[in-house]
Amino acid sequence: MKKGIFITVEGPEGAGKTTIFRKLGEYLLEEGYQVLMTREPGGIAIAEQIREVILDKENTTMDARTEALLYAAARRQHLVEKVKPALESREIVLSDRFIDSSLAYQGYARGLGINEVLSINQFAIGDMMPDLTLYFDIEPEIGLERISLHKGREINRLDLEKLEFHKKVHEGYHILLNQFSERIVKIDASKAVEEVYNETKTILMNFIESHSLQIK
Amino acid sequence: MKKGIFITVEGPEGAGKTTIFRKLGEYLLEEGYQVLMTREPGGIAIAEQIREVILDKENTTMDARTEALLYAAARRQHLVEKVKPALESREIVLSDRFIDSSLAYQGYARGLGINEVLSINQFAIGDMMPDLTLYFDIEPEIGLERISLHKGREINRLDLEKLEFHKKVHEGYHILLNQFSERIVKIDASKAVEEVYNETKTILMNFIESHSLQIK
Repeated sequence: MKKGIFITVEGPEGAGKTTIFRKLGEYLLEEGYQVLMTREPGGIAIAEQIREVILDKENTTMDARTEALLYAAARRQHLVEKVKPALESREIVLSDRFIDSSLAYQGYARGLGINEVLSINQFAIGDMMPDLTLYFDIEPEIGLERISLHKGREINRLDLEKLEFHKKVHEGYHILLNQFSERIVKIDASKAVEEVYNETKTILMNFIESHSLQIK
Repeated sequence: MKKGIFITVEGPEGAGKTTIFRKLGEYLLEEGYQVLMTREPGGIAIAEQIREVILDKENTTMDARTEALLYAAARRQHLVEKVKPALESREIVLSDRFIDSSLAYQGYARGLGINEVLSINQFAIGDMMPDLTLYFDIEPEIGLERISLHKGREINRLDLEKLEFHKKVHEGYHILLNQFSERIVKIDASKAVEEVYNETKTILMNFIESHSLQIK
């Protein structure tokens, strides 16, 4: 073994992926693995600076392609400075969202084109594509209900307007499942959290063992 | 005619392209054309902000691919906010450097790969590729001599170290000449400025007339 293992967690809002992400990280740590849990821009100064340009509320004229290129630039820097050293130290890297979020949200739902956004992300990622992607699948309506429950309020008009967008994101992820069937595993996130967690943990541990990783 | 014409000026340092660029702009204005002369980031706020991230001297850990993505992002925004409106107003847009500089300098001379850098720039440019590119060709040694003359000093050790890099840039441009032979016209920039200018003017005016542009 020369390197660690790079795992990303993906899914639309309301799928509960961040909860599972945290529990998986804790489990791996308890099992004695070296684990890096991250989410872009992840405290990397250059990536944070780029994110500030993206989020600057003065930048109302920002073009969608400019934004996609900036996300790819921040991704590259976070990878090089944070993910790569961890992989070289044989750690397990868990990332909350990564390339597939760009492809589903910007490429598909926002209409820039999955393959177009893929091309700039392939440039950004180079040979550091995830080894495994855990995709938490949830019907947009159920995801939306969960978000409103989480926020302790009823679904409002704005939520419903967002529903159309969430449906596109969901469709986008399903295209990616097909396009990257060797890398992405679909997990039914409509079940109870504990059940989803146990299923995910089994998939993850089987993956780690099948790769004969001796990185404890 | 629905749009103007987009012309870029390219070449290694010391080829005298910026002098010719200015003279061409003045000539077109005198002839009654609407002309936009620009050079990235060209005063576009978002492009300038991105350029600040690139040039920030604190950012010593910036990866070469991050930098290339940031240049592409700034290019996109400058195109959308400055070049596109001018083309829609049927202007002639003259840009001092554009995509081929990225391809020759970053793609070839810095070793990122011409086709790799091309892919992210195609995303950035979309359907706004230049109609014509005027490439000012000069042997690296002569270019270097001109630069030192311009600076009023002898060629020093650092200049000679740079020579190897300039040779790579020159090679890169020649690969592009071949790859984009329909778009890029090579101009021998070793002659006297007036001669180079007259030759370039002829090429430019023939191009404009052959495109039956009625954009005066």
